[in-house]
Amino acid sequence: MKALYIKEKGDYPVYEDFHTPEDNDLVKIKMLGSALNHRDLWIIKAQYAGLRYPIILGSDGVGIHNDRRMIINPSHNWGSDQSHQGAEYKILGLPDNGTMAEYCCLDNKYLYDAPDHLSDAEAAALPLAGLTAYRAMFVKGRGQKGQKVLITGIGGGVALFLLQFAIAEGLEVYVTSGNQDKIQKAIDLGAKAGYNYTDSDWASNFSREEGGVDLVVDGAAGEGFADLLKIVKPGGIIVNYGGTKGKINNLVPQTVFWKQISIIGSTMGSDKDFRDMLDFVTRNKIKPVIDSIHKISDYKNAFDKMDNGTQFGKIVLINN
Amino acid sequence: MKALYIKEKGDYPVYEDFHTPEDNDLVKIKMLGSALNHRDLWIIKAQYAGLRYPIILGSDGVGIHNDRRMIINPSHNWGSDQSHQGAEYKILGLPDNGTMAEYCCLDNKYLYDAPDHLSDAEAAALPLAGLTAYRAMFVKGRGQKGQKVLITGIGGGVALFLLQFAIAEGLEVYVTSGNQDKIQKAIDLGAKAGYNYTDSDWASNFSREEGGVDLVVDGAAGEGFADLLKIVKPGGIIVNYGGTKGKINNLVPQTVFWKQISIIGSTMGSDKDFRDMLDFVTRNKIKPVIDSIHKISDYKNAFDKMDNGTQFGKIVLINN
Repeated sequence: MKALYIKEKGDYPVYEDFHTPEDNDLVKIKMLGSALNHRDLWIIKAQYAGLRYPIILGSDGVGIHNDRRMIINPSHNWGSDQSHQGAEYKILGLPDNGTMAEYCCLDNKYLYDAPDHLSDAEAAALPLAGLTAYRAMFVKGRGQKGQKVLITGIGGGVALFLLQFAIAEGLEVYVTSGNQDKIQKAIDLGAKAGYNYTDSDWASNFSREEGGVDLVVDGAAGEGFADLLKIVKPGGIIVNYGGTKGKINNLVPQTVFWKQISIIGSTMGSDKDFRDMLDFVTRNKIKPVIDSIHKISDYKNAFDKMDNGTQFGKIVLINN
Repeated sequence: MKALYIKEKGDYPVYEDFHTPEDNDLVKIKMLGSALNHRDLWIIKAQYAGLRYPIILGSDGVGIHNDRRMIINPSHNWGSDQSHQGAEYKILGLPDNGTMAEYCCLDNKYLYDAPDHLSDAEAAALPLAGLTAYRAMFVKGRGQKGQKVLITGIGGGVALFLLQFAIAEGLEVYVTSGNQDKIQKAIDLGAKAGYNYTDSDWASNFSREEGGVDLVVDGAAGEGFADLLKIVKPGGIIVNYGGTKGKINNLVPQTVFWKQISIIGSTMGSDKDFRDMLDFVTRNKIKPVIDSIHKISDYKNAFDKMDNGTQFGKIVLINN
């Protein structure tokens, strides 16, 4: 079969022949499409734990099995505790070969019927980012109708699912971005307002204009994180699911304890979270925001786009 | 009456005549004793929000009302939300005159029968630190039997209640201190082991020797806080109730979200927390650790002791 894989450390991925997987204990799915995550980019750059080669990229995917269109849960071996993943946890696409290939073999329990209202590209775009967003917003963030939520760094896959999920649940959504176009697009999708975090006064302006929020969901961390303490109401929650901007500094403990703020880390999600996320997406007829759809053979342009950070929504690879 | 009060900003407190309080809407309690908190020291140093003068010091106290020995809840106007205090919240002893006097006037709803198993000094030592510890350990920290908990900075009033409460509930307790004598005293009180945080390898040593903990309860913050991320197990909780060591720096977000750690601020407690704390102390026959008992007229030695940080347990002032 053809597959998008990295031959050796330091190599750029190739789309070339690869042995077709066969495993009697697993189900073989004929892939229709996959989607990019930052994780794939970090693996390409050899900046990820547990690298091994050759490795087929891809955590997200949709494909055909027994004439049914199946969506893949990439979150494997979660374990028995809903509060966190266990020691055997792994994400599809490293160490196991991923979804960017003609075929993918995996345990039947990670296959779910794809929601009917989604196109192949939309179904491919959903799994990893949708799961991460669902857990961060509802399981760890306990977001609920009537609350105000701030979503940082709008434009990325997880942030856009956070936006769509929060709006569907009846929260009032605010966003930040370093890019005014992305803020406008988020408002077009239903956000109440957006703030440009490159403006050093954005947090004070936010507080004056909007008051506080019940919940912040952040994927950036870094120097800007301390500003989030000013934005959140007493008793509020800040969920962090990513660290693209690096270490967190300058947290004033008196603010944390006097406002009784909770800072809660969240990553991926359990099997239950995935089922709940699919139910939520189906019930609310949510369609993932797609930045662009590329043929899998055109993967270089797709990865370049993600590396430049210019995308708004998921970048999808289609097999045919 | 005699009272321990600060006349004007910058003045050291005096124990002198003060007008006896009278208020038909409030209950007048004849004080038996009070206890020191760091809060009182910061007020003396004029390093506290909302300073006003003259002000009688003291948040903790026990006294007589209608021939019953009553203990005082210093946490006033909590409000309707259990998750945090409301905008009208205040702590007894600023802005309202406090407990270090012959008489104290306060709303009847903040008076509770003092547990019979406590001496006057022990009852005086309980309220503020006991409340803070109870909420941090059980409400915010969700500490439960069989868990492992690390309590930082053992020796202070809150930290020692945390130790006693955790042991009574059946948790396995570990402590840190910068002082080996305090560690030994904590072990004598039932802690499993203690680590000296002035040893830069203490966190690695802890992990190797003890594995991780389910819960950390910390009152220090500062540069050492980042080490606590190494100590806590995946899915674990770090509660912070104080910031004597200053700002929190160098938190690695990848550790926070991948381990799904919760960092939760906690302060004081609601009326419900105070009732629950009193019930817990009564049921478990917990006796506060007393560092020393001073006559109220000997307050200078008492405050000096707290300022030097040499105490192990609560410092109590007795009225007669």
